Amino acid sequence: MFGTVLVANRGEIALRVARTCRELGIRVAAVHSTVDRESAVVRYADETVQIGPGPARRSYLDYAAVLAAAERVGADAIHPGYGFLSEDPSFAEACEAAGFTFIGPPPKVIAALGDKTAARALMAAAGLPLLPGEPVDDVTRAAAVAGGVGYPVIIKAAAGGGGRGMRVVERAADLADAYLRTRAEAQALFGDDRVYIERYLPNGRHVEIQVLADAHGNAVHLGERDCSVQRRHQKLIEETPAPGVPRDVVARMGEASVRGALAAGYVGAGTFEFLLDDAGDFFFLEVNCRIQVEHPVTEAVTGLDLVAEQLRIAAGEPLGLTQADVAPRGVAIECRVNAEDPARDFAPAPGRLDAFTVPGGPFVRVDTHAYPGYSVPSAYDSLLAKLIVWAPDRDTAIARSRRALADFRVDGPGVHTTAGFLRDVLADASFRAGTHDTGLVARLQSQPETQEDS
Amino acid sequence: MFGTVLVANRGEIALRVARTCRELGIRVAAVHSTVDRESAVVRYADETVQIGPGPARRSYLDYAAVLAAAERVGADAIHPGYGFLSEDPSFAEACEAAGFTFIGPPPKVIAALGDKTAARALMAAAGLPLLPGEPVDDVTRAAAVAGGVGYPVIIKAAAGGGGRGMRVVERAADLADAYLRTRAEAQALFGDDRVYIERYLPNGRHVEIQVLADAHGNAVHLGERDCSVQRRHQKLIEETPAPGVPRDVVARMGEASVRGALAAGYVGAGTFEFLLDDAGDFFFLEVNCRIQVEHPVTEAVTGLDLVAEQLRIAAGEPLGLTQADVAPRGVAIECRVNAEDPARDFAPAPGRLDAFTVPGGPFVRVDTHAYPGYSVPSAYDSLLAKLIVWAPDRDTAIARSRRALADFRVDGPGVHTTAGFLRDVLADASFRAGTHDTGLVARLQSQPETQEDS
Repeated sequence: MFGTVLVANRGEIALRVARTCRELGIRVAAVHSTVDRESAVVRYADETVQIGPGPARRSYLDYAAVLAAAERVGADAIHPGYGFLSEDPSFAEACEAAGFTFIGPPPKVIAALGDKTAARALMAAAGLPLLPGEPVDDVTRAAAVAGGVGYPVIIKAAAGGGGRGMRVVERAADLADAYLRTRAEAQALFGDDRVYIERYLPNGRHVEIQVLADAHGNAVHLGERDCSVQRRHQKLIEETPAPGVPRDVVARMGEASVRGALAAGYVGAGTFEFLLDDAGDFFFLEVNCRIQVEHPVTEAVTGLDLVAEQLRIAAGEPLGLTQADVAPRGVAIECRVNAEDPARDFAPAPGRLDAFTVPGGPFVRVDTHAYPGYSVPSAYDSLLAKLIVWAPDRDTAIARSRRALADFRVDGPGVHTTAGFLRDVLADASFRAGTHDTGLVARLQSQPETQEDS
Repeated sequence: MFGTVLVANRGEIALRVARTCRELGIRVAAVHSTVDRESAVVRYADETVQIGPGPARRSYLDYAAVLAAAERVGADAIHPGYGFLSEDPSFAEACEAAGFTFIGPPPKVIAALGDKTAARALMAAAGLPLLPGEPVDDVTRAAAVAGGVGYPVIIKAAAGGGGRGMRVVERAADLADAYLRTRAEAQALFGDDRVYIERYLPNGRHVEIQVLADAHGNAVHLGERDCSVQRRHQKLIEETPAPGVPRDVVARMGEASVRGALAAGYVGAGTFEFLLDDAGDFFFLEVNCRIQVEHPVTEAVTGLDLVAEQLRIAAGEPLGLTQADVAPRGVAIECRVNAEDPARDFAPAPGRLDAFTVPGGPFVRVDTHAYPGYSVPSAYDSLLAKLIVWAPDRDTAIARSRRALADFRVDGPGVHTTAGFLRDVLADASFRAGTHDTGLVARLQSQPETQEDS
């Protein structure tokens, strides 16, 4: 196992990775921007390196600064967390070139799966079902493809992911404008203006499969996560099992994901994202080559520590489990509590936390980098804490989550959180019934007042 | 289900009970002494009542004050937690007389099981194995009984429990003095000087069985807890499963406990305590008629919320599970982190907490009433926090517990904790091997320095 791991990230995930390193007897080093010097991981790590100012491109995205930090602390390996450099094949390559193990898939695999067009081709060859669509490189072709697959369609940046760089088009009249805007946005966000068009399932269910694959040709899946509670393509609530999805559909999605992982030469922890329609048909969307924000729900039902699995795989160990060993139990729900003001259209609401008390009790986990007195910076995303709750059944998990959300005490000038809004979502009749889809949050927001039942 | 529950206790257990009440939609009222006005449950409850000054007999043990508080808040039921009034049959009777449901067994059952002599007779009749011994009421008879069962013997207060009012005697020459001292102590502690003498197993394993019994004649057991890590008969670390104890022995202990619970007319959550010798023979010690400090390890492996079960049983609901539904999974360890100074023979070390950060991460639970800025009072026991860790296997559970213990940050003038000492215990070779017994802590303390391996 590694002697020292450098955590090249910030926020809750940096602390979460650091904790597992400690448990495995690994020395932990953390990097931080000047803005993040008060983050919990900075207090936690064995060694810390300030790598630059607030803007991520001058710190967390700066290859040279991160690699210099790794050199300085004597790291054997670099854990990229999620976001930032976690799915950047050039960074993964730079790590390996500098003699550090990159904790993630091989650079070529990240590159192939990060290009959505290439990923679609690879997964089609592995027999995974896809929504009809194809890459387009001019507006005439875009119109022809959209007409062929049928409206609504979604235009996506080939280099995109994580909900960014995509646009839904309802009618042919809007296509040309949307096509040009998405290309421009793709260029601005990813430095790559290639896009493709796919059939859009307006109220499909977003269900993803967690996989683990080692460097010795073994792969398993750890069941699914339902991420259908989204706001503008950003996940707010994730849960497992996916309510109402037949177990044989999940089993087939799992088998398809393992097949896809092996076909891609995947190594590490990864996620296969699918859209699921009412008929129980599923369609491959993309592979996320990282540990995901929502990984704790899978941990809660499987009993595994996914970061520990990542570290062991990266150290060359074979998987310690087979598919038959995976026996998910109960129900887990994760709520992302953001420092945002639901009353102001979820505008970021950062600031100093005069009070910060998180919920506790049986089967309640809170992953956060905040603490009383911490100042939530405005420089980064607004994720303040993740609440993960487990229960034997879904009704209990919902009640427990709602209790725990009510138990957050977050106060500070200008600070707001989404905890109350998430309580409303969990109280929604369609969510309780498990019949909700990706349109739920938009429907709740359009109501004059949020509902509150207790 | 109840509308309002009064929590008649303090510290971590009061908050823990309050959280479950909230989850079940029950309004929570808390009592507190003047000393405890800053305790977390006081901030948490829907309504609070100050019931007297610091000394427990003038607040938490004051029937009239507690019942007046229940009246004032409109309580339907009273949860006594552990300690204080939780096993006082007269209080349970007074609750019922005043129209409040006492959340615990019927008063007569508490009375019968609280008298150790009566409990022994009851359990012997139900076929539970007992260590040889009997009540004694003069020094001559004491010597005769001790000689008959063979030294070492243990003299116990009939009205005692929880490790108080007992004395081990190694040699006949010490018997008379020990007998008289124990009687005097029993009188002072419990107002009842009856004692009995039992054969003593010097390095036996302390293993207990959690049972649940409803008011409709149904009872199940939820497996065992090993509480062999003790200091002066006070438990420090509890775990499940009991390492090295064959599953068929646990099964027989479980069946015996269910038989005993049914024979006693038990209703609620209770614990059957046993001593286990090297040959795998077990001997009934006592029944604890309360939720126990160590109940969370059972929750972690069974997935149940034992306080919710108590509330449902007290509300008259039948058990929602049968013995076949009980399927413990993995390993759970609880460490009691006390505000004590191991370097000064575990003297209480309370005070204001300038810093108080508790561990987190996957499968880590901390039950505590403390928070940054809280002042640990000197008026009560020194339990500061309970750390409960779950893992698929014992080695991982130990590593996770040691990591989590290291992650406590507790600072304040004069404040010390046992977290570091507990880390040493978990690193001990006999503990790791699961071959330790109730003599472990004494042996570790007699070493010139505590050991530390990381």
